[in-house]
Amino acid sequence: MSGAGAYRAAGVDIDAGNEALRRIRGQVRSTFGPQVLTDVGHFGGLYALAGSGDGETVLVASADGVGTKLKIAFLLDRHDTVGVDLVNHCVNDILACGARPLFFLDYFATGALDPARLEAVVGGLVAACRDNGCALLGGETAELPDLYAPGEYDLAGFIVGQARRATLVDGSAIRAGDLLFGLPSGGLHTNGYSLARAVLGLRGDPDAARAALTATPPGLDRPLGEVLLAPHRSYLRPLAALLDHPDGRDLVTGMAHITGGGLLDNVPRMLPAGLGARFDRAAWAVPPIFELIRGLGDIVDAEMFRVFNMGLGFVFAARPGAAATVREVVPEVRSVGEVVALPPDTPARVRLEG
Amino acid sequence: MSGAGAYRAAGVDIDAGNEALRRIRGQVRSTFGPQVLTDVGHFGGLYALAGSGDGETVLVASADGVGTKLKIAFLLDRHDTVGVDLVNHCVNDILACGARPLFFLDYFATGALDPARLEAVVGGLVAACRDNGCALLGGETAELPDLYAPGEYDLAGFIVGQARRATLVDGSAIRAGDLLFGLPSGGLHTNGYSLARAVLGLRGDPDAARAALTATPPGLDRPLGEVLLAPHRSYLRPLAALLDHPDGRDLVTGMAHITGGGLLDNVPRMLPAGLGARFDRAAWAVPPIFELIRGLGDIVDAEMFRVFNMGLGFVFAARPGAAATVREVVPEVRSVGEVVALPPDTPARVRLEG
Repeated sequence: MSGAGAYRAAGVDIDAGNEALRRIRGQVRSTFGPQVLTDVGHFGGLYALAGSGDGETVLVASADGVGTKLKIAFLLDRHDTVGVDLVNHCVNDILACGARPLFFLDYFATGALDPARLEAVVGGLVAACRDNGCALLGGETAELPDLYAPGEYDLAGFIVGQARRATLVDGSAIRAGDLLFGLPSGGLHTNGYSLARAVLGLRGDPDAARAALTATPPGLDRPLGEVLLAPHRSYLRPLAALLDHPDGRDLVTGMAHITGGGLLDNVPRMLPAGLGARFDRAAWAVPPIFELIRGLGDIVDAEMFRVFNMGLGFVFAARPGAAATVREVVPEVRSVGEVVALPPDTPARVRLEG
Repeated sequence: MSGAGAYRAAGVDIDAGNEALRRIRGQVRSTFGPQVLTDVGHFGGLYALAGSGDGETVLVASADGVGTKLKIAFLLDRHDTVGVDLVNHCVNDILACGARPLFFLDYFATGALDPARLEAVVGGLVAACRDNGCALLGGETAELPDLYAPGEYDLAGFIVGQARRATLVDGSAIRAGDLLFGLPSGGLHTNGYSLARAVLGLRGDPDAARAALTATPPGLDRPLGEVLLAPHRSYLRPLAALLDHPDGRDLVTGMAHITGGGLLDNVPRMLPAGLGARFDRAAWAVPPIFELIRGLGDIVDAEMFRVFNMGLGFVFAARPGAAATVREVVPEVRSVGEVVALPPDTPARVRLEG
C-alpha cells in the first residue's frame, strides 16, 4: 500500500481510465458539430446555443457521481450529505469556465426502493440546489434488483449552466507571473475514497468499519465518519463575487476544480502549453485527515497529490496586481503559488516546492 | 407470479416508487424559480432560458437509465446496444413536448474499468447520438470498487434539447374526438426487464440463463437474447416530420413516450383532465415476446399494459381531419384509438377495448 501504485492496489486505476478515455475520444468527437466549443476532458462541456438572440449564450454541462464516499454513508446509514456533495461537485465543474448553474437532474439507482432513504438523499440535493440557486429540474429513480446490494444505491448528477461566450474563462489569458490562489476544501470532497477506505481499514467487516468511523483517531477533532462525510464545498459564491467584480478579468484568469487527479492533474487543465504551476507547500495547511491517510498508508507525495485535494478544493489564477482586491473580495483565499514559464509548447505541469 | 403483484414480486414496486415521489415533490418544487415551466413527473423538465433574445428558447432535459436490460447485456457479454437504448430513450422523452436534442452526457459506473467494454458502450452512445443529431458532450466514468459486481456496470444518461415556447406540445390542445396514433416499438425497449427476466428464468444460474438466451422459444423468430436486446427505438425522425409539417398543430396535438407504466400510466400524462384514451386492442399486433411473457407468467392484462409497452413505443394524438396527412407523412403509424370525453375534471385515464 505504498508508492505510486497505492490507488491502483485499492482498485482504482487512473492510467487504465485515461487509456480508455483516449481510445474513445475520437469516437466522441465524431458527434461534435460546430456548436461544441470544447474538446473532451475539460471540467464541463460547452455548447453554443443557436438562436439565442445575439449568439452569445453558451450552455455548460457536466456529469458526476459521488464515488465510494457512498460506502461511508451506507455504513453510517446517513443519507442527507451525499446529495450536497454531488450538486456542489457539479456546480464547481461548470464554474471552472465561468458558468452559473441553471438546473440539475439526478439519477438514483438502487436494488429495492427505500422511500425514507430516497427522501434523505433528495433532501440533500434540494438543499444544495437551493443554496446554489439551481432548479432540481428532474431525475430518474431506478429500481434495479440484482444490480445493487441490499441497502445500497448509486447516485449520479447532471448539471447545466449558462455562460456568455465573451466572458468565458478558459485559462488562455493566464500568463507567467500570474498568482495562484487556493480555496480550502471541506475534506476529501468526493475523491480518493477507495484508497482512503483501504488505508483506514473500512473495506472489510462492516462492524469493525463502523467502530472505526465512530472513533476519533489521533490528530482529528471529530469522529472519523464525520470527517469523511464532510460535504464537498461549492465555490460559487466566492468565485461569483470575483467574476462579477469590475476588475473580474484580472481577478480570475483561469480556474481549476480540484477533483480526481488532485492538484497535479487538474491545475494543468486550466494552463496553456508552455506554462507551469509552482505551488509553495508551506502556503497552506494540509488538513489532518490527509496526514492520517498518508501516515497509515505510507503513501508518497506524488500519489497523495494526485488522488486527494490535500486541502485545496479550487484553484484560480489572477494577475499579480489584482492580489489585494482578490484578498479583499474573498478573505479566505490563500496565495499558494505562481504561474511560471516553461519552454514553448511544453505540456503544462505542476511543481510542488517546499 | 400472477395478477397485479407480479412486477412487485419481481422486485420492482411501482406504487412504492410513486409514494416516494409524492413525498419528495414538495421539496423539489421549492427549488423551482419562475423559469421552470413544468411540474415534476412529465417526460422532460422545461426551463425557459432568460436572455435568449426573444425569450422564446426553452431547454428541455431528461435523465434516464437502462434498467436491468443491462443484466441481459452482461449475460451475453454484448455491450454495444445499451448505449443506443439509453440515448434513444432520452431523445423520446424530450421529443414528447416537441424538443429536438442538442447534447447528451453519460454516467458509466463500474467496479473495475474494462477499457474494451467501455469502448463498446460508448460506441453505442456515439452511434445513437450521431443518428439523432446530438453531441455526446461529456460524461463521467467512475470506478467504484465494492459497489458493483465484477464485470457489471450501471449506465445513466442525461439529455438537453431545445424547443420554442410558442410551439411546445403539452397536450393541452387535445380534444375529445382526436385520433390516437401509435408507432411500433422495437421490443421491450428499456422497461419491464426485472419481470421479464423472472418469468423467462433468467435471474438464477448464469449458465442456464445464457442457454435460455441463445435458444429460440416457440413463437419467436430469433434467439431470445436477440429479441430482449433489440434497441429502444428513437421516434425523432417520424415525429419531426409531422411537427415540421405546415399542418403540424393538427397532426400532433399531444405525445406520450411509452416507458415504465406502459400505455396505462404514460398516455394520461399527455391528456388534460376530463379526457380519456380509448384504445382498440385489435388495431395493432402485440409482438410475440410479450405474449410469451404473458403466457409463462400468467400475467393479467392490467399488469402487462402497465409494465410493458405491448408493441407501441410512442403514441400521439391528432385531429380527425389530419389522419390522411399523418398516414402519408409517416406510413408506419397505426390508428390505435381515440380521445373520449370524461366527466369534467375527472383525471385522465386509459380504457383498453376489444
